[in-house]
Amino acid sequence: MQWYVVASLLTILTSSQGILTTLSQSNGGYKYDYATVPFLAEVYKLIVSCVLLWRECRRSPPPKMTTEWRSVRLFPIPSVIYLIHNNVQFATLTYVDTSTYQIMGNLKIVTTGILFRLFLKRKLSNLQWMAIVLLAIGTTTSQVKGCGEASCESLFSSPIQGYMLGILSACLSALAGVYTEFLMKKNSDSLYWQNIQLYTFGAIFNMAKLVLDDFRSGFEKGPWWQRLFNGYTITTWMVVLNLGSTGLLVSWLMKYADNIVKVYSTSMAMLLTMVLSVFLFNFKPTLQLFLGIFVCMMSLHMYFAPPSTLVDLPVTAKAEPQSGVQVSVDRRTAS
Amino acid sequence: MQWYVVASLLTILTSSQGILTTLSQSNGGYKYDYATVPFLAEVYKLIVSCVLLWRECRRSPPPKMTTEWRSVRLFPIPSVIYLIHNNVQFATLTYVDTSTYQIMGNLKIVTTGILFRLFLKRKLSNLQWMAIVLLAIGTTTSQVKGCGEASCESLFSSPIQGYMLGILSACLSALAGVYTEFLMKKNSDSLYWQNIQLYTFGAIFNMAKLVLDDFRSGFEKGPWWQRLFNGYTITTWMVVLNLGSTGLLVSWLMKYADNIVKVYSTSMAMLLTMVLSVFLFNFKPTLQLFLGIFVCMMSLHMYFAPPSTLVDLPVTAKAEPQSGVQVSVDRRTAS
Repeated sequence: MQWYVVASLLTILTSSQGILTTLSQSNGGYKYDYATVPFLAEVYKLIVSCVLLWRECRRSPPPKMTTEWRSVRLFPIPSVIYLIHNNVQFATLTYVDTSTYQIMGNLKIVTTGILFRLFLKRKLSNLQWMAIVLLAIGTTTSQVKGCGEASCESLFSSPIQGYMLGILSACLSALAGVYTEFLMKKNSDSLYWQNIQLYTFGAIFNMAKLVLDDFRSGFEKGPWWQRLFNGYTITTWMVVLNLGSTGLLVSWLMKYADNIVKVYSTSMAMLLTMVLSVFLFNFKPTLQLFLGIFVCMMSLHMYFAPPSTLVDLPVTAKAEPQSGVQVSVDRRTAS
Repeated sequence: MQWYVVASLLTILTSSQGILTTLSQSNGGYKYDYATVPFLAEVYKLIVSCVLLWRECRRSPPPKMTTEWRSVRLFPIPSVIYLIHNNVQFATLTYVDTSTYQIMGNLKIVTTGILFRLFLKRKLSNLQWMAIVLLAIGTTTSQVKGCGEASCESLFSSPIQGYMLGILSACLSALAGVYTEFLMKKNSDSLYWQNIQLYTFGAIFNMAKLVLDDFRSGFEKGPWWQRLFNGYTITTWMVVLNLGSTGLLVSWLMKYADNIVKVYSTSMAMLLTMVLSVFLFNFKPTLQLFLGIFVCMMSLHMYFAPPSTLVDLPVTAKAEPQSGVQVSVDRRTAS
């Protein structure tokens, strides 16, 4: 499969994720425990990966699987990074409001580029660096509040700790992505075997979170496994399947494409969600949404188009720059 | 002189123009007749050009001067285009408000690129086209109203005639620029001789406007020459000298550089004015101002940087993209 097909599919699924999550709310809240969704998504990804690995094992040659502990022990690390990230995110939100947090989230695009360069030693041209910065600017532009909206003053007025934590959050999020890419590419193991290791630890960490939530609430609502599917509707199941499928596509991209492709997919998904919200939820489109979309499209083209198609002059440009004009006019004015 | 020195000077003078004009107001209005400013600026440019031509004539070889009527008759055309443009601008403002008009004014950047390509037959690479579009997006982004400001709803709600006239206005403005470049480059006449022709017609057209205004107001305030310097302060004279000097620099750029350089200079001046207004007039900086400045800086670099510095990978990038990672890690996981 071509990477851009997978990337487009990821854009569509990530975009539906936001819309499905909104649709799964009733009266502005969730009837189900939202913490169960990522857990079930991990279980779904684990099942799919097991089935696909089993199919692969029946074919020849059999898939490569490294089962040594010193390889397996690397797979919980992304989950650990996400755990730290979630706590930093929580701490950040005590200093800044959600819209400032959302705006700062775009920093993740730039930090991913930097860690991609530093840790994975991948070279980018100046134009590709500019494209990455433009992608972050474009997504930020699209999120600038319109003039009718609330919380105008808050953007530059949060305490400095909020911004420091926001930057840390962006670094951790990028680190998790870059580390996963490193894991997936470090050897030629079967993607599905790598997935199984990744999602087993993912499921364990998510389960631990549910248990911890139970302890925190003093088992008020009973243990998590008794209320796992409480309030689940068809839409909630679609949210789970969608989130799981998104994760599978991200794993594929980490192995066969890279973090920058993933960043483009999810940024485009954010814009697609905003455009779809105009039609689905009567979201009022702003000028900055259009401007942001344009900037992101330019950035996409700058990053992925073959450099020669970008910098070469049109083929007929053989004459010296101004001679065309001068020759045609000199005939009229020569005295 | 290098073109980028002239372009930078033009940026600084254009930017001071906005600030001086604001400073020349008293109690939010002008004590002098604003229509006299462009007329006096034309006279100033004419005097400077005459002096410089006279100096040039004393040197050898003498400057080239085409005095044939069929060359001279082309020089009033920019003034005619500006006259039509001003009337279209006036008509546009009956349909749209000033902030929408200002936003639409950025279209001029794109129309200049198009006419530059069509009329002057100048080739641009895809990257340069993208840079031009990004410049227009960047300047527009910087002008997006903040959330506390007035006139939110008006942007997409004006009648269609308003937008059509706005586009026509952008085309006329670009046409005047492109036509002036054609005039300046069509032969190797002395710049100062070309200036004299241009500014003589400019002064005549501006004088005609003053006379017309007198007739329209029924000579209420007396003929224009009697109240020419009424209410003039030092600042007003600085506005005149600044406007005139700006015009001289633009002429130079039209002959020795091009319209795109001019467009970059004036767009950067617009951003510089906004940044200076933060300090001088307590203008509140918005997030979109920063985003717009970033986009314009990227655009500037994309347009003018040598293509090889943009698309070439860093020199050490000799290995295959992922091999660095794979080699270093395979040592740890090879079984």
